Amino acid sequence: MGKYSYIKEEAYEGNLLLPKLNLVLFTWGNVSVADHKEGVFAIKPSGVPYDKLTIESMVIVDFEGEVIEGNLRPSSDTPTHAVLYQHWNDVNSIVHTHSTYATAWAQSQLDIPIFGTTHADHTTSDIPCAPPMSDEMIKGDYEYQTGFQILNILKEKKLNHKEMEMVLVGNHAPFTWGESAIKAVYNSAVLENVAKMAYLTRQINPKAPKLKDALINKHYERKHGANAYYGQK
Amino acid sequence: MGKYSYIKEEAYEGNLLLPKLNLVLFTWGNVSVADHKEGVFAIKPSGVPYDKLTIESMVIVDFEGEVIEGNLRPSSDTPTHAVLYQHWNDVNSIVHTHSTYATAWAQSQLDIPIFGTTHADHTTSDIPCAPPMSDEMIKGDYEYQTGFQILNILKEKKLNHKEMEMVLVGNHAPFTWGESAIKAVYNSAVLENVAKMAYLTRQINPKAPKLKDALINKHYERKHGANAYYGQK
Amino acid sequence: MGKYSYIKEEAYEGNLLLPKLNLVLFTWGNVSVADHKEGVFAIKPSGVPYDKLTIESMVIVDFEGEVIEGNLRPSSDTPTHAVLYQHWNDVNSIVHTHSTYATAWAQSQLDIPIFGTTHADHTTSDIPCAPPMSDEMIKGDYEYQTGFQILNILKEKKLNHKEMEMVLVGNHAPFTWGESAIKAVYNSAVLENVAKMAYLTRQINPKAPKLKDALINKHYERKHGANAYYGQK
Amino acid sequence: MGKYSYIKEEAYEGNLLLPKLNLVLFTWGNVSVADHKEGVFAIKPSGVPYDKLTIESMVIVDFEGEVIEGNLRPSSDTPTHAVLYQHWNDVNSIVHTHSTYATAWAQSQLDIPIFGTTHADHTTSDIPCAPPMSDEMIKGDYEYQTGFQILNILKEKKLNHKEMEMVLVGNHAPFTWGESAIKAVYNSAVLENVAKMAYLTRQINPKAPKLKDALINKHYERKHGANAYYGQK
Repeated sequence: MGKYSYIKEEAYEGNLLLPKLNLVLFTWGNVSVADHKEGVFAIKPSGVPYDKLTIESMVIVDFEGEVIEGNLRPSSDTPTHAVLYQHWNDVNSIVHTHSTYATAWAQSQLDIPIFGTTHADHTTSDIPCAPPMSDEMIKGDYEYQTGFQILNILKEKKLNHKEMEMVLVGNHAPFTWGESAIKAVYNSAVLENVAKMAYLTRQINPKAPKLKDALINKHYERKHGANAYYGQK
Repeated sequence: MGKYSYIKEEAYEGNLLLPKLNLVLFTWGNVSVADHKEGVFAIKPSGVPYDKLTIESMVIVDFEGEVIEGNLRPSSDTPTHAVLYQHWNDVNSIVHTHSTYATAWAQSQLDIPIFGTTHADHTTSDIPCAPPMSDEMIKGDYEYQTGFQILNILKEKKLNHKEMEMVLVGNHAPFTWGESAIKAVYNSAVLENVAKMAYLTRQINPKAPKLKDALINKHYERKHGANAYYGQK
Repeated sequence: MGKYSYIKEEAYEGNLLLPKLNLVLFTWGNVSVADHKEGVFAIKPSGVPYDKLTIESMVIVDFEGEVIEGNLRPSSDTPTHAVLYQHWNDVNSIVHTHSTYATAWAQSQLDIPIFGTTHADHTTSDIPCAPPMSDEMIKGDYEYQTGFQILNILKEKKLNHKEMEMVLVGNHAPFTWGESAIKAVYNSAVLENVAKMAYLTRQINPKAPKLKDALINKHYERKHGANAYYGQK
Repeated sequence: MGKYSYIKEEAYEGNLLLPKLNLVLFTWGNVSVADHKEGVFAIKPSGVPYDKLTIESMVIVDFEGEVIEGNLRPSSDTPTHAVLYQHWNDVNSIVHTHSTYATAWAQSQLDIPIFGTTHADHTTSDIPCAPPMSDEMIKGDYEYQTGFQILNILKEKKLNHKEMEMVLVGNHAPFTWGESAIKAVYNSAVLENVAKMAYLTRQINPKAPKLKDALINKHYERKHGANAYYGQK
């Protein structure tokens, strides 16, 4: 077992959760896990079906996106993960999927409005949708620029990546992250569920009001505040 | 086996039904079972996945919401359950979920209209959606006040909790109850199904009329009236 | 084994198909199988979950709806089945469900338009939705009158029950039938699928035209005409 | 084992994938696999359920649609497959299904707009919907003419069958193809997924813009271009 076996195993386990939670069709998603001390992350090899993955097939890449260890090509989204790890030393795992409802919102180029406590239990704002990038950026290093698209939309919306752990990339699909692979994949499933509920809410009542501030704060605080009382200590 | 083993077992079995009936994602729902003679109820511990639950992990709480027995924190919704048991001595089980279609109606802040016999087989009125609570109530004892929100909407709509065993809490999600855990969970599944059918009905025909009174009464009576002939004697 | 064992077994197998094909929640559907020579049919007992059914639990009823054999109450919809068997001596099985999309159309009180060949492979007309019955009929023998509602809508639309083996009862839910339990349940699944596709078609294109006559006839003839070439000889 | 055993086995495996990927109800779909050197293809027998199929039950047909080997009738869609193989000597497998969302778009008689990268990863244009065929063609050799409908819509839209491996036949349902059965069935699943996402996108935002050209080209090139970097070498 090599020196990166721990992150390879966590990335492997995280990737296997994607089909289990119905977040991917075929190979359309990837999970990475970083070791910030070593300046590397483990990521799914490109185009390999989940049921053919092994711990050893995970690819080790540095924060410039260069392969350090592994015989397979890393996910084509690797530069996006690399940019985010470069900027966020407190994020240990990143997930990308094309889950159906979240992707439909991304294709709609609309933020997901905060309509209820299911949303507020996880974050206090609308989930932002980054606008499509400029033609120059697309023709350049596309996946690398996708990382900056995510950083920029958070900056523009004055959101901190520890408070908002999910983003839609306009015309494309969602990215989520967290302190571990389990948490980052959990966020992808939350996002898909919140996206479906928001879609249905607007179909039922096109004038549905957003959640009021007092409720937003209450639900977030009870799960994430200093006096959080959700879950076990 | 302690003195509360019977309600702990029923609460445990009821909680396991939630994922089986596709009513919950992760830990987003809880079932409690009361013993009115002892003035206590057993409830799911907070934030514990359903596949990690054991009968012994159920928490025993009194009708003030104080823990009587158990090493884990009870569900954060415990005060809501406690208020309802205080007021309803003929209700033995309460269920809370964030099931998708029922939650979308709650987020829409609309009652679910009675469109068909599937609905009328269970209750004779629209399923009420309580308006969001005032900011003062939210900042106070929020989950405790949620119990009063439920009591108040039933009072306002002149509905008896034995005739209407399900309510939407506006911006939040559904609560259902019944004479046993199986019946209360059954009501959550009925609500989700009726919510989906009502959503589709309005999409197909925005002017769909409600069920007429003669049909409402007929369907309810054949299942719940003095001369009920649905099911076995 | 009694003299009705053959129809009891077929009714039992037919009922088990309902949950397998996702056409029912809990006990919300029933299948019957008739023996026209004996003037009786076997039907699901009322309110019994599918996984508790046995061949012996099927109830034998005559075409007046009177129980001939069996210890349990027959389905509350028994008089509807009885009326139809009285009038249709070439129908051997009848199915009633509350399947989601078909029921939403019934609640919408709209016929399901013939939009494509999936529909035309099974019948050449819109699937009719019977209007809600009069208050007098509801207060009388409701389930018996539901049988006449079905007979009347077919008559009004000039449809033969051998050409149109499915009907929506307005505000209520679908009934289907066929020469065997397998065929009648097949028709329930076809109806649910066609109902979902028609719903989606109108959401995508509210002005979607109906299938033209030449295509309707072609698809129906290739499966059901004198020179049918679908399936094995 | 006969001389066609290789294509019979591949067709058999391909047909079994259809229910596995939830693309068919009952027998509503078929996969064929061609051997262009021999001028024949293996196709599913008509109306036989997937769980009753065997390798030996696959029917061998020539490119005129005449049965060469096999005891069962081939799929009623056989002439459509034959016409396409006649014209496309670089296509080895064709798939026809009535998958729900793709069929709803076909019934809507609308092309599926290219809204996102999930679509662009597979093809650079809207997925075309062929208009219903003329009455004369329907009354003639219908399934044979369906093949020409597909050839004509591609010609009209100036699309090459190697770049656009999926088409909707108006009022009917989708056809897809590819270099192998696995690839052709993969395309059917991609189409169903893209059709669902496009439906949701337009429901969420009726004015959702199509994907811009720079993104279309980038996503397609990274998977299919000369310097493709998606997947393994």
